[in-house]
Amino acid sequence: MESGTSKQRNRRRQNEDELRLFGIHTVAAAVANKQRTLIKLVATTNAQTRLTDEIRKLGGNPARLDGLVETANPKDIDLLAKGAVHQGAVLTVAPLPPLGITDLEDAKLVVVLDQVTDPHNVGAIIRSSVALGADALVMTGRHSPEDSGVMAKTASGGLDMLSMITVPNLARALDDLADQGFDTVGFDSEESEPFEDILSGMASDQKLALIFGSEGKGLRRLTREKCTQLARLDMPGPIKSLNVSNAVAMTLYAWSLKTNGFFK
Amino acid sequence: MESGTSKQRNRRRQNEDELRLFGIHTVAAAVANKQRTLIKLVATTNAQTRLTDEIRKLGGNPARLDGLVETANPKDIDLLAKGAVHQGAVLTVAPLPPLGITDLEDAKLVVVLDQVTDPHNVGAIIRSSVALGADALVMTGRHSPEDSGVMAKTASGGLDMLSMITVPNLARALDDLADQGFDTVGFDSEESEPFEDILSGMASDQKLALIFGSEGKGLRRLTREKCTQLARLDMPGPIKSLNVSNAVAMTLYAWSLKTNGFFK
Repeated sequence: MESGTSKQRNRRRQNEDELRLFGIHTVAAAVANKQRTLIKLVATTNAQTRLTDEIRKLGGNPARLDGLVETANPKDIDLLAKGAVHQGAVLTVAPLPPLGITDLEDAKLVVVLDQVTDPHNVGAIIRSSVALGADALVMTGRHSPEDSGVMAKTASGGLDMLSMITVPNLARALDDLADQGFDTVGFDSEESEPFEDILSGMASDQKLALIFGSEGKGLRRLTREKCTQLARLDMPGPIKSLNVSNAVAMTLYAWSLKTNGFFK
Repeated sequence: MESGTSKQRNRRRQNEDELRLFGIHTVAAAVANKQRTLIKLVATTNAQTRLTDEIRKLGGNPARLDGLVETANPKDIDLLAKGAVHQGAVLTVAPLPPLGITDLEDAKLVVVLDQVTDPHNVGAIIRSSVALGADALVMTGRHSPEDSGVMAKTASGGLDMLSMITVPNLARALDDLADQGFDTVGFDSEESEPFEDILSGMASDQKLALIFGSEGKGLRRLTREKCTQLARLDMPGPIKSLNVSNAVAMTLYAWSLKTNGFFK
């Protein structure tokens, strides 16, 4: 409970900002991402070999790790990973340099999350956003570093392949997106149109932002008001709501069908 | 290690077959399902009130629980739930009467899982299968009762709204489905056609089974050989593989677009 010197406090703060990334895909993607500052890799010799291959596959340079590698046995890494699936590799990194909405000039497809915080869900959303060709993910607030490790692992490397933008004020971010020519389509069961009808009426080169709220709570009132359109996904079966990561994957897939000419 | 009497052994086996279901949606769906044998409900008074409402909403009869309810405080239920999210309600039930492939006569849309075992993934697949109007889920093998609680909770009540069929031999099950007029479309990146092209060429009243393997392993060789068609989901972005529950949700959604006339 006693306060440290100013220097100690600064050091502590800096450490809190570091992230630990686990698993071959996630670590390799971070090394392949030139924007990512690498701090330290703790890995088994076996994992180091796999990492070298995987980093090259992603077009990255394994030599970025020179001087940063500590070889360890799996049990030591278990202790560092605290139960996370690590595949023999734990990489400490700095967070990526922050991006803002104005960095989305060239983006065409953006996913926006309104207070979705579960790291498994956010990680799965990052993975499918990358797979389905979204350019960026806009979120409110920040995740704690503990959660970020889980998020990064679930994202399967996607954290280093997608522009991640955290905004303090989502309503303003939606205004900014609209100003940049995005249709901002929010998903909400109330006063909304079927998403398929909205897609039908849209040009396939339209810049599109898809906004999702958390399960249970949905979109906040101000978020709803700032969307240019409200859409709903009507489900034919007796369960009417979807897991948010499934809903994101479905709508991004529908958009890829649209841009590929499969959607009427 | 000592063997009990025959009666003791039988009792032990019976208990191993019982399932504990957690959470309001899951418990309410089980009570509303007339096929489900109820054994015991342990719940807070608050949860009992919510359950009564929820069971009625699902068209069920809350009186099915008469004589089976033990009122408990949240801490007692924590002990029973062993870390699972229980919302104050734990219901012990018997497994549903087993169904076979021949029970799928009237089914039109079936999801088949080839050795997908992660209970979170299977639960999410059950939930989206119910939401998107699939009639049944066919799986290999059985889940252990411990896993089934997680699976049921993730499925958000869907376990009691979908025909669940476990088969000892998936290859034979695929033959049986084909004999019943199903197109059996397996998802595999090798020697496959884009799923969208397959959908385009299909009649929208075709009986359809969609077969998915586990992440990493994919479909087993014999499963591949028994599928009438092999499909792949081409991803435009740098991550090429999807979480299996997202892949299932996307393909079921594509089928619902097809049957609703939105697919070209």
